[in-house]
Amino acid sequence: MEKIIVQKYGGSSVADAERIQRVTKHVIQQKKNGLNPVVVVSAMGDSTDHLIELAKSINPSPSSREMDVLLSTGEQISISLLAMSIEAMGYKAISLTGYQCGIQTDPFFSKAKISDIHPDRILSELDEGKIVIVAGFQGMTENGDITTLGRGGSDTTAVALAVALNATACEIYTDVRGIYTADPRVVKDASQLKDISYDEMLELAKLGAKVMHPRSVELARKNNMKLVVRSSFELEESGTNITEVKQMEKAQVRGVTCDDNIVRLTVPNVPDKPGIAYKLFSMLAAKNIHIDMIIQNLNHDAFNDISFTVPKDELENVNSIIEAFIKEVGASPLLIRKDVAKLSIVGTGITSDANIASGLFGTLYQLGINIEMISTSEIKISCIIDESQSKLAVNEIHSFFELNHVI
Amino acid sequence: MEKIIVQKYGGSSVADAERIQRVTKHVIQQKKNGLNPVVVVSAMGDSTDHLIELAKSINPSPSSREMDVLLSTGEQISISLLAMSIEAMGYKAISLTGYQCGIQTDPFFSKAKISDIHPDRILSELDEGKIVIVAGFQGMTENGDITTLGRGGSDTTAVALAVALNATACEIYTDVRGIYTADPRVVKDASQLKDISYDEMLELAKLGAKVMHPRSVELARKNNMKLVVRSSFELEESGTNITEVKQMEKAQVRGVTCDDNIVRLTVPNVPDKPGIAYKLFSMLAAKNIHIDMIIQNLNHDAFNDISFTVPKDELENVNSIIEAFIKEVGASPLLIRKDVAKLSIVGTGITSDANIASGLFGTLYQLGINIEMISTSEIKISCIIDESQSKLAVNEIHSFFELNHVI
Repeated sequence: MEKIIVQKYGGSSVADAERIQRVTKHVIQQKKNGLNPVVVVSAMGDSTDHLIELAKSINPSPSSREMDVLLSTGEQISISLLAMSIEAMGYKAISLTGYQCGIQTDPFFSKAKISDIHPDRILSELDEGKIVIVAGFQGMTENGDITTLGRGGSDTTAVALAVALNATACEIYTDVRGIYTADPRVVKDASQLKDISYDEMLELAKLGAKVMHPRSVELARKNNMKLVVRSSFELEESGTNITEVKQMEKAQVRGVTCDDNIVRLTVPNVPDKPGIAYKLFSMLAAKNIHIDMIIQNLNHDAFNDISFTVPKDELENVNSIIEAFIKEVGASPLLIRKDVAKLSIVGTGITSDANIASGLFGTLYQLGINIEMISTSEIKISCIIDESQSKLAVNEIHSFFELNHVI
Repeated sequence: MEKIIVQKYGGSSVADAERIQRVTKHVIQQKKNGLNPVVVVSAMGDSTDHLIELAKSINPSPSSREMDVLLSTGEQISISLLAMSIEAMGYKAISLTGYQCGIQTDPFFSKAKISDIHPDRILSELDEGKIVIVAGFQGMTENGDITTLGRGGSDTTAVALAVALNATACEIYTDVRGIYTADPRVVKDASQLKDISYDEMLELAKLGAKVMHPRSVELARKNNMKLVVRSSFELEESGTNITEVKQMEKAQVRGVTCDDNIVRLTVPNVPDKPGIAYKLFSMLAAKNIHIDMIIQNLNHDAFNDISFTVPKDELENVNSIIEAFIKEVGASPLLIRKDVAKLSIVGTGITSDANIASGLFGTLYQLGINIEMISTSEIKISCIIDESQSKLAVNEIHSFFELNHVI
């Protein structure tokens, strides 16, 4: 089957009958253009929140298996309505749930990972000229149990299907026009990127640009599947392409992000013995806690201060683990600093261009902003700064790198 | 697996969190009593109506395949909530959709019939000590498509499962206490029956006692599965048993029903030729129209009047067929009488006891009520009378046969 295009519409794009009809027209237009659309949809608007509320009124901590049975109904409702809407316009359509289109997952309810896709049913429906509508966010275990894919689940369904179907592209329709050089709510003259590489997108996604979950971008990169982020409200806009962008000689900053959902932790006076940092971080890793930046300072003879950042919602879990660590090795009490933010610039090759790092640090210096921690990767430079100064910093750095002119 | 009991709870029994918790307690009590409950539930309250409304706002005549995908979510929500509720009380439970518990159907969407049940999954979950919660009203075709079973669907799921699991009984929990000698809204001193035979129940169900759909009663009779109709609001009440009641020597009236959802049709002056009645009724049968009572009177030489009754909602379909028939054979224009009701008495062997028939006709005579048509079967006698007199007649006949004393 040729010219398959996978399109994914989020919950806000199918929130009511009128929006479903708008999606319908767009999908039919693709069909008229000679493409074979496979459409992945999320649950309508905030219907998932209502189901969660209902569940909590019955059981404050419901089992994740039963939550998945419950929540998967949300997408099942959307797919049937979109199929009906397409049929009302005189086109052939068929809705398929996660298991009906062969999406097999591991058995980790509420955060399942796709293990395999058997797209035979989708292909045979496309062969019959139907527009295929697929429930995002869900799959089935080998045992026949319904699973949901957790955060970024519907995007992941779309990318995984695009790969399995050998689609020409995977379009993610959302409530913004594409990927921006900075959060447009923070930086007024942020500009939309026409193209971005998987790696840059991954960094932006991880650093708090919430348009796409890193998980689905990673899957696309691994399989070299072209992603397009577009607006379902402004369908005339062309969006942002996420592809294997050709490497330019000149490194260029592509975006500035700021994540204030972090907390900085410091364990002072840790005895300077081999393996002691390993001990701390393996205790945290055992509880699956994502550690971000780490700095170890030699404080004075035979004692170190170890600082690192974690997401704010992990603080409670982390606290109890560190208490145990401090007790065991005999360090000083934990210091917690919540009012910090992580400011980052992203762009392929930027760490190898000394002018870029010095431009970043110089701008912060001129603003009188203290840099508490620094970390770098091949394509990003991150600084921990005071949260109260983060908006000012993002705007100034955006200007300094002339990101309002980026194409 | 021994001591399996199948219980079915209708939509009003699981309409909100509080009612779900009441059902939970009752189910757990059965488990404590040493039984292995398999619980079939319908969609919550009027949630199905909301889904239908949503569909119609998008497509006035949606395909039945997509309607089934949509409507089956209602039961899926109920089963997960009931399972969570049982888990909240510290018992093990698991919810299973129609296809997960192996309910295979034919491919007639919105009115599918169960073709087979593979209860392996249910049995293995029961073996692990779990209370199994099953979505009523739904199944899956061989092709993997979701179907719904149409009217009486959840009761049918329950009975079919009880048969497949070789359960000790199938309990139908509803919003009335059981089966009554007459509709308690019409006859104030109607009494609840402790036992009733499948045949009597079938007649009552067909004659308009709406507690159970004939379809599920027929399935129970075919497999000799004991049915119990009980109230989910008054759980201390024991309900009505529907079983193969031992035949008594003395015939006894067990119930009086009245169905005013019928219309009487008369085709006057049909030529008296062989095969002409066959022609009319085969034309109607071809359109799957259920004809009830039929009377053919010799009117005058070589011409007959043919009268019969059909459900009121079939009138439109019937009309066009009869017009064609009249045109073809040259009969007089159709006469339609809408203000009639069918009054019936039900009881095994009553037609073989002349006193019962004469008691019925005599009572109607003394009330000055004209009998327009009569039909009998082994266990029922039905009369078509004027609709305006039906309530009076039901009450007087109920008294005449002393049904307020029936046990």
